[in-house]
Formats: sequence, structure tokens, C-alpha cells
Amino acid sequence: MDAETLGALARLVRKERVASLGTLRQGAPFVSLVAFLPQDDFGAFHLRVSRLAWHTQDMAREARVSLAIAETDDGRTDPQTLMRVALRCEARPLEGGAAELERLKRAWLARFPASAVTFELADFAFWRLAVRDARFVAGLGRTHNLAPADLAAAARL
Amino acid sequence: MDAETLGALARLVRKERVASLGTLRQGAPFVSLVAFLPQDDFGAFHLRVSRLAWHTQDMAREARVSLAIAETDDGRTDPQTLMRVALRCEARPLEGGAAELERLKRAWLARFPASAVTFELADFAFWRLAVRDARFVAGLGRTHNLAPADLAAAARL
Repeated sequence: MDAETLGALARLVRKERVASLGTLRQGAPFVSLVAFLPQDDFGAFHLRVSRLAWHTQDMAREARVSLAIAETDDGRTDPQTLMRVALRCEARPLEGGAAELERLKRAWLARFPASAVTFELADFAFWRLAVRDARFVAGLGRTHNLAPADLAAAARL
Repeated sequence: MDAETLGALARLVRKERVASLGTLRQGAPFVSLVAFLPQDDFGAFHLRVSRLAWHTQDMAREARVSLAIAETDDGRTDPQTLMRVALRCEARPLEGGAAELERLKRAWLARFPASAVTFELADFAFWRLAVRDARFVAGLGRTHNLAPADLAAAARL
């Protein structure tokens, strides 16, 4: 993929902070809105979710999820030209040491200060969505299938 | 549900024009961006999609889909307060007479004028997503499970 396309992908991932999470619920897809924090190399995306939420219950049963990050609709004539990337991921509760958790907590609170209360609540935890592959629509008729290596290349830009 | 909440739902559905569509792909959820047109009573949502697209192939295999409409991220401190509704639907290619198709085509083109080209292409068709139920997040801690009757009540406001 050319540098311009990779650059557009990197800007999209870095600009947006909410995404649509597709989980499996009773054999059918279910889509919910989540706040996310990308890993520096775009190899994984972190969520902070309550175990009481539907999507968390779903991820606990079926780890394969889809996380779609889309450019904000700016009212342009043709919304089909909006840039978006659908990541297919494996979701797991974060398994990290205290240092990693502390680093992630700091980064999360810098991005989502209103989320501080979730660190006082026992039902909230970080989940890590490891990227298996992705489908990037850079514009009308500009669809690219991406491997984690492509995402890593975008993250280096 | 109170009139204020129903009114907020109606405004959300009428204001947005793109949604996240969750389909089932190889046993896992896949999320893509679609343009949509709600039926006047919010009982169904129409899409215009190509049979070459992944989501169309998915819907042809598994009719149960999820359509999530979210308020545009306006950069507020807490994105968890963004309003969103996740509709669970049954998707079918539109089966209507010529009059219904013509009416829908006019409404679609008024909303998405750049989509005119899709009426020249043989691979595009309307799909109708009939709503089974919905989950409406009106704000932080304000989640409502909705039946089609609730959506119809919102549509009357």
C-alpha cells in the first residue's frame, strides 16, 4: 500500500476516539459504541468496559469481534466517501503487570478524563483487542485488505 | 418511556444518515459503514448496497443484523454520553411493487444525490431491515430496551 494511503489510515485511527464494536450475541451480531485507545503500533486496541455491559458479556463468550473506526460525517454530498476501517480482532481481558496497567491507566485518563470514576468501580476493566486483519475503505472504490504488518507500517508514519 | 426520551430518539434517527452495520461473516461479527433511510414509522430501515459488498453477501447468508446509529462525536469531555441506538433487524432484499420502488428511489436520491449512479448499476439493490428490537442509550446510565412499538411512538413525535 502506498505511503499516502497508509498516512490517511494513521490519521483516521489517531483522530477518532470512539468506534463501533461488533460482538456476537445469541448467534447474531450486535453493535455498540465504545471509546478506544490504540496501541502505538496499531497492533491492538484497548477498551475499558463494565462486565455488566452486553458487549463485555458477549466478548467473554466469543473473542472474535469487529471494531470499526469511521471518519465523522461532515455533511458532504456523498457519505460513501467517508473513510473507515473495520478491524477484526481477538478480544481478551488485559493480562499485564502492574507497570503496564499503570501506564495504560495514565494514557486512558489523559484521553478520557471523565472515565476516572471507572477506576473506583469493581466491574470495570481493560480489554485488549489484538488485530487479526482489517479492511480499510480510503474512499469510494478504494478498499484495501490489511494485515497487521500494514497497520504497523501506518503506525510508523 | 417518557416523551422527552422518545423525542431524543426521534431526533437522533432523523438527524444521522450513516450507521454501523453488524453482519455475520465466517461465524464472527463484521462492522461496516452504510447510508440508511428510515421508514416513516421507524419500523424498518432501507439500505442501498451492492451484491459485491461483503455486508450484502453476509446478509444473504444470515438475515439477523445490527444497525447502530450514533450521535456524531462533537469532542465533548465524555464520549460515553453520546446518544446511540442499536437496532436488531431482519434484513431482506426489498420486495415491493414498482410504485413502492419508485417512491423509495425518489426519497433515496433526495437524501443521497451522489447515489444516482447506483441506479445505473445492475449489482445495486435496496435492502429492507425490519426492526425486531432496539437498545437505546440516551446518555450515561440511561439505557432503554425498545420494542417496535416504542420506535413507532417516537416516530409519531
